[in-house]
Amino acid sequence: MRQIRTDLAMESQQAAGNVPGVWVKQWEAEGVHITEVSIDDEQAAEHLKKPVGKYITLESAGVKQRDPGSRLAISNLLAEELGRLLPPGEAPVMVVGLGNRNVTPDALGPLAVDKTLVTRHLFREIPGAVNERMCPVCAVAPGVLGVTGLETMETIRGLVDTVKPRVLIVVDSLAARAVSRLACTVQLSDSGIQPGSGVGNLRRAITQEALGVKVIAIGVPMVVYAATIARDALEQLPQEDALIEENALDALAEKLLEGSVGEMIVTPREVDSLVADAAQIVATGINRALHPGLSEQEIREMMD
Amino acid sequence: MRQIRTDLAMESQQAAGNVPGVWVKQWEAEGVHITEVSIDDEQAAEHLKKPVGKYITLESAGVKQRDPGSRLAISNLLAEELGRLLPPGEAPVMVVGLGNRNVTPDALGPLAVDKTLVTRHLFREIPGAVNERMCPVCAVAPGVLGVTGLETMETIRGLVDTVKPRVLIVVDSLAARAVSRLACTVQLSDSGIQPGSGVGNLRRAITQEALGVKVIAIGVPMVVYAATIARDALEQLPQEDALIEENALDALAEKLLEGSVGEMIVTPREVDSLVADAAQIVATGINRALHPGLSEQEIREMMD
Amino acid sequence: MRQIRTDLAMESQQAAGNVPGVWVKQWEAEGVHITEVSIDDEQAAEHLKKPVGKYITLESAGVKQRDPGSRLAISNLLAEELGRLLPPGEAPVMVVGLGNRNVTPDALGPLAVDKTLVTRHLFREIPGAVNERMCPVCAVAPGVLGVTGLETMETIRGLVDTVKPRVLIVVDSLAARAVSRLACTVQLSDSGIQPGSGVGNLRRAITQEALGVKVIAIGVPMVVYAATIARDALEQLPQEDALIEENALDALAEKLLEGSVGEMIVTPREVDSLVADAAQIVATGINRALHPGLSEQEIREMMD
Amino acid sequence: MRQIRTDLAMESQQAAGNVPGVWVKQWEAEGVHITEVSIDDEQAAEHLKKPVGKYITLESAGVKQRDPGSRLAISNLLAEELGRLLPPGEAPVMVVGLGNRNVTPDALGPLAVDKTLVTRHLFREIPGAVNERMCPVCAVAPGVLGVTGLETMETIRGLVDTVKPRVLIVVDSLAARAVSRLACTVQLSDSGIQPGSGVGNLRRAITQEALGVKVIAIGVPMVVYAATIARDALEQLPQEDALIEENALDALAEKLLEGSVGEMIVTPREVDSLVADAAQIVATGINRALHPGLSEQEIREMMD
Repeated sequence: MRQIRTDLAMESQQAAGNVPGVWVKQWEAEGVHITEVSIDDEQAAEHLKKPVGKYITLESAGVKQRDPGSRLAISNLLAEELGRLLPPGEAPVMVVGLGNRNVTPDALGPLAVDKTLVTRHLFREIPGAVNERMCPVCAVAPGVLGVTGLETMETIRGLVDTVKPRVLIVVDSLAARAVSRLACTVQLSDSGIQPGSGVGNLRRAITQEALGVKVIAIGVPMVVYAATIARDALEQLPQEDALIEENALDALAEKLLEGSVGEMIVTPREVDSLVADAAQIVATGINRALHPGLSEQEIREMMD
Repeated sequence: MRQIRTDLAMESQQAAGNVPGVWVKQWEAEGVHITEVSIDDEQAAEHLKKPVGKYITLESAGVKQRDPGSRLAISNLLAEELGRLLPPGEAPVMVVGLGNRNVTPDALGPLAVDKTLVTRHLFREIPGAVNERMCPVCAVAPGVLGVTGLETMETIRGLVDTVKPRVLIVVDSLAARAVSRLACTVQLSDSGIQPGSGVGNLRRAITQEALGVKVIAIGVPMVVYAATIARDALEQLPQEDALIEENALDALAEKLLEGSVGEMIVTPREVDSLVADAAQIVATGINRALHPGLSEQEIREMMD
Repeated sequence: MRQIRTDLAMESQQAAGNVPGVWVKQWEAEGVHITEVSIDDEQAAEHLKKPVGKYITLESAGVKQRDPGSRLAISNLLAEELGRLLPPGEAPVMVVGLGNRNVTPDALGPLAVDKTLVTRHLFREIPGAVNERMCPVCAVAPGVLGVTGLETMETIRGLVDTVKPRVLIVVDSLAARAVSRLACTVQLSDSGIQPGSGVGNLRRAITQEALGVKVIAIGVPMVVYAATIARDALEQLPQEDALIEENALDALAEKLLEGSVGEMIVTPREVDSLVADAAQIVATGINRALHPGLSEQEIREMMD
Repeated sequence: MRQIRTDLAMESQQAAGNVPGVWVKQWEAEGVHITEVSIDDEQAAEHLKKPVGKYITLESAGVKQRDPGSRLAISNLLAEELGRLLPPGEAPVMVVGLGNRNVTPDALGPLAVDKTLVTRHLFREIPGAVNERMCPVCAVAPGVLGVTGLETMETIRGLVDTVKPRVLIVVDSLAARAVSRLACTVQLSDSGIQPGSGVGNLRRAITQEALGVKVIAIGVPMVVYAATIARDALEQLPQEDALIEENALDALAEKLLEGSVGEMIVTPREVDSLVADAAQIVATGINRALHPGLSEQEIREMMD
């Protein structure tokens, strides 16, 4: 299989074709295209380089045109799917925004945390004032290793030990394979986050196995690797194009992977506003899922 | 004693006059006025509403005029005094920036953390690459309760348990009594931070007693409470002004403390740039103290 | 008359009491307190230190508590009053945001411009695409003299010559006398802006007289001068307080005006979010007044 | 000739090979690679799609590694070459930062303007206070059409009429053909800016012809178009690669230019910090060229 770098399980699955232990389901709702990929065993996980678990992808091209209806629909569907994954209980929910606030395409997590309705302190300090339709929520953006000198997991582990949340919701920027998915696709999964690949570096994995608490990951692809785009383009060549053989394609792609190009990212010029929009959509989905007793209008006013 | 709200021990001491168990020393160096207040026992602490410990205050009016020489001098003196307080050892130093990044006069801590040279991850990951003249440093800005739903202490305690630093350096914006001290005064103390008063709310105190690790606090006053300024002004009245008696003064001040005025802050109009400058000065002092093997020029280039 | 520094005509009028040539009208609507001060001749203008014209002040304490109903009400009333002042015509409307984007309490103008719906280029370039219910609008934030080296008027005059707008709407941060009016009061006037006082420095005045085009000014007070607050407090003393005579009050106030205190501002600690909220309210009012054919919902979605 | 999109004259020249009326000179200084391309007549301009004029390109790979020596060297050389282009005179110099402050790779111009030392108002208001070693400078960032509703030229023309500067220095983000030139290359030219191509849209051209004042353009490439990178990669194929013929290459490239890919940009992940660094380098070069009487140290302190 080609080594296309993507954080979307649906793209890994599409590149791999039929794999035993992998199930795919697709449907449409409110104009949003939904794909559910279920990776059932370790062999399938190894094959797709993604941990065992369920991955739900919501796609809506209208989001990029800032269409209000599309944004509302994708938020609502995210809230619904997230709601299904949430374990019941009284313990707080902890939202964690990964990534670097000062690197625009990497800022989704911190920006989504800024828009998350935080209530845990109200439950502790002025319980009478808390709306009974709300649930206790805390939210942090721990920053990145190069800026803090701390592994994200070191920060999270300490907080989990102290707060004892019933679930972690981890928000992060993703890389996709297809440019058309940037900024208009949300992936939700119950597998946690395993940097690098499906076979994990346990020290860094943010998973139930490592933390002892359920981990739900939400991500939006904001970049495509520059090497990927060239590779992807080459693969789009018509099969009948006899002039270019498979070997030549590979040589071509390798050529592209040389030098600095591989480290470059492809991103829409207006990524600053797209990442802000995506953070708003993700935070709205989270807020609605965590406080189902509040109306859409109430949530919007509190987030303003 | 008048209840003037100030975070500067030297202002509390000046307001209180001679108090048993409190020692004061003053001197000048490189154009900077230095005051050392030592609070030796609990009775003195109770009297001044400041925990037992040593408080060093550096004042330089030139800093506010952005005079390069004054900024350099106060950074150097901070580095020197901080160096004296640092415990020896191989364990990392943890710098913690308190306050809210999105409230300008409260952003000193997060901004200083942004400028702190972070090296702990290099020691762990590519030890060969680390300059032997450097020491391992990590740095975090945990945010404020209303934004995260987490007590600052909850975050710090978790990190201290994981990182096991040899010392915590906590940076925070302060309130002063005198407008003339805003943005040009640095207080350094070995007493940690005890919100509210000298007699502490242990749940929130960031102290050696609470954390099991030495805590050094560095702060710069960025605001004066609006109530304070009125009170302070009234007290400046010449003693011979027979028209206004002590009782009338108190009535006047009480009047001013009513209503919203008390919650207002007095601050220079250009506080955005002043807090950025103060963060640069504090971070330079910290960086120089932690990496004495690096030259002034090297530190400056790394911070650029 | 006491020399209280305020940019609100209603505060100048209140301080002055009855003045010939000044008319005051007050009413309530949708929970908003409205005051209209009309300054009819040059003598009255000289007395109040405000140019001849009509000043409408909208006050709503709920705005500061971020109450959605209050924010909506004050935006709607601003749109209505502004609509009455707009001259008819096909020529574009030019919105100008005064002040310094990097000085938080001074950033109202630039922030409001960021939220203004800009359409003039659409009318020129793709006229078919423009909704016929919209009007051509351009918007600029010219910056301040110390940052650009240009008088605001130099920039505006050049733009007015080129664009030939039918009206200028100038947005600026104001200073108030009363702390209780900060961030929850909007002043709208048809007199333009005359820096300093009612008797103008014509080189800097942004007025119909100077520019040959009608000028409407919209402002929100974000600061009180520190000297003002002390003066104001002293004046609140009960008349029967025989201990303090008028002379002593003046001596007291003068004392407070000495030194750096006078240059300090009093502002709410959370001014960063209050100025952003105020900019949203002002821009909503402007957008609704300029595009009466669009619904409240449409305006909100376009501003998101 | 291939239609590679680049704003660097040296890249256009390299792609075109020998063209009559185009002269190229290359040399090294202080570790910086310098290329001077001179386009002498309209035919050559048409051929290279760049206006007649002199283009000096400074390249230094060390800049991207944030090497202090490399940054200093490139600033100094920029100052020197810019100094040669400046017309003598007493009239002010106007620096114009093009681009959109809120789109990271497009923010070079506004950020460079923020770091430009502005002095014109001092010459006018307190001439005695101005260092005689300085020259009068004003600086503006007029914003982009979609945000202001105003053509950049409309704003500039108005300002030029008012200020009557002796020269305009226009700073803008560029697109390059080669990824390796991003963020480490500065182009300086005396041809002004002609959007689109060498044969101009006079309404938008920022040139001496259009404005009646000399225009010097300074730019740093921050992006490569995604289509370009694929095209460029294909052209790097070894000539002996018989499997892929020229026709197939073109078909391939055309394929890549379809759809959204063409609108995407390739940029380094850390473009936020790279554009800030580039703005610092450009502004340092401008400041040193405009105020040759000030020392390197004085300029640095004023810019801090």
